[in-house]
Amino acid sequence: MISAPARQFWTFIHNSPRLFSLPLDMRRRAAERSEGMTSEPRGVAFAPAPDVHGLWAEPPEARPGAAILYFHGGGYVCGSPKSRRKTLGHLALACAARALAPAYRLAPEHPFPAALEDGVFAYQWLLAQGAEPARTVIAGDSAGGGLALATMLAARDKGLPPCAGLVLMSPWTDLSLSGESFDSRASTDITCSRAALGEMAGWILAGADARAPLASPLFADLTGLPPIFALVGGDEVLLDDTIALIRKAAHAGVDAFASVAAGMQHVYPIWSGVFPEADEAIASIGDWVIARTE
Amino acid sequence: MISAPARQFWTFIHNSPRLFSLPLDMRRRAAERSEGMTSEPRGVAFAPAPDVHGLWAEPPEARPGAAILYFHGGGYVCGSPKSRRKTLGHLALACAARALAPAYRLAPEHPFPAALEDGVFAYQWLLAQGAEPARTVIAGDSAGGGLALATMLAARDKGLPPCAGLVLMSPWTDLSLSGESFDSRASTDITCSRAALGEMAGWILAGADARAPLASPLFADLTGLPPIFALVGGDEVLLDDTIALIRKAAHAGVDAFASVAAGMQHVYPIWSGVFPEADEAIASIGDWVIARTE
Repeated sequence: MISAPARQFWTFIHNSPRLFSLPLDMRRRAAERSEGMTSEPRGVAFAPAPDVHGLWAEPPEARPGAAILYFHGGGYVCGSPKSRRKTLGHLALACAARALAPAYRLAPEHPFPAALEDGVFAYQWLLAQGAEPARTVIAGDSAGGGLALATMLAARDKGLPPCAGLVLMSPWTDLSLSGESFDSRASTDITCSRAALGEMAGWILAGADARAPLASPLFADLTGLPPIFALVGGDEVLLDDTIALIRKAAHAGVDAFASVAAGMQHVYPIWSGVFPEADEAIASIGDWVIARTE
Repeated sequence: MISAPARQFWTFIHNSPRLFSLPLDMRRRAAERSEGMTSEPRGVAFAPAPDVHGLWAEPPEARPGAAILYFHGGGYVCGSPKSRRKTLGHLALACAARALAPAYRLAPEHPFPAALEDGVFAYQWLLAQGAEPARTVIAGDSAGGGLALATMLAARDKGLPPCAGLVLMSPWTDLSLSGESFDSRASTDITCSRAALGEMAGWILAGADARAPLASPLFADLTGLPPIFALVGGDEVLLDDTIALIRKAAHAGVDAFASVAAGMQHVYPIWSGVFPEADEAIASIGDWVIARTE
């Protein structure tokens, strides 16, 4: 049973224009306002991070050496560090750690692997600022969740040290859209669809293989990855992107945690303050991260 | 990376005779000693529960109305409430709730659905003792995990009130043994195997369909079930019994949580005090149960 505020909010979203059906320029403007209704993370200091065109969030109780690297969502075609500023702040508070949201280049202007190159650069840059890899978590939502995972894979392949964990909120892990939930959840998902994600996948790939492991990390060899915590809404077309990832991670010998919240929609944890399920999700992420970065 | 005590313990188990390869009478005697190395749950008072041929565990901080109904493992052919006495006590402590472990009839003397009938009787009996369904969790390990799930399904079908959640430790949910992990984990699992579980499945089913929904609850309609928290070791042949269940529960609109612990073996949470992963698993169960039975 979902909360009354959540039900009310999903009805509001259901009756609003779908972000991913807007023309790209309107979509980009709308994405910048996506946190309009969410609560302000109190006490967090924000500062620019010019070297990665990003944003720092510093909570009052930041633990020295601990850090979050956060990749915003937006289907690899829209969104920015500022469009997830409050989410970044709530995560920084819950995890008692500095959090960095870098920008990354977007499609269609900059197709794969531009975003991934920027992701790996941001991870290296964060470590150079004093973040300890064993006390750093890489996180992201939606496309940013896929990018977080691909960034760790590319970093591993480059010989960079593993981080302490990956926190993936409704991650888009499979640009080939092979999950059955694209059909079984087509009528319940009020923001994403096969058509919308297919269009974006085309822009991102620009002819590259949709099953290339660093574009669709579901198809990568996950051996040696740090623990993964994936959260997903039960009503999402991307449900199977999480379930299949957890299964694959488990079979690769990776510690894997999945939380499927029945009745919840895409990237529901970003709506802090709007409904309790979002706040509970952020709190559970905080507990998980702190336990792994003590 | 698993802990040194866990590695030491699994080596010890690896070098011991396999429980499930022993003749049935020896297996039953050995099962009664399965908690020999685990720590004593301090402060817990144990008492018989004659009406269900079982055992109560009462922790010092038991919350009135909250309860755990716990089904022991043993492949439906061995084990008893006493063989999981300490586990019951550790769960009662972690969940701050009274915990009841009923006996249930075992195969091959009593094939399906004897254990299930006893399970449903125990749930009804527990509620009659003052346990509030909305503050009661049904739990179990291995076959007891499958039985916990089947009990809630049969109770639902009888019109009994749902409990607050299901906690399943390495649950055996599929007597048809269809999981790929029976092959992919054959060389890493040091206690279970397709041959051993297949022999027991034959005894349990005694000709019944291995895909009957109340014998193999993986094949049941899970709609309307309370939240499920399943824990499994990454090296188990039963890994896919958990992953497939979580996927199915998520698709049925059930809140579903999965924890796959890399390098861990079958029912690893029962070894409290032997290695830290077991204690952490019990603690995580306590957090989860308390949040849902406040």
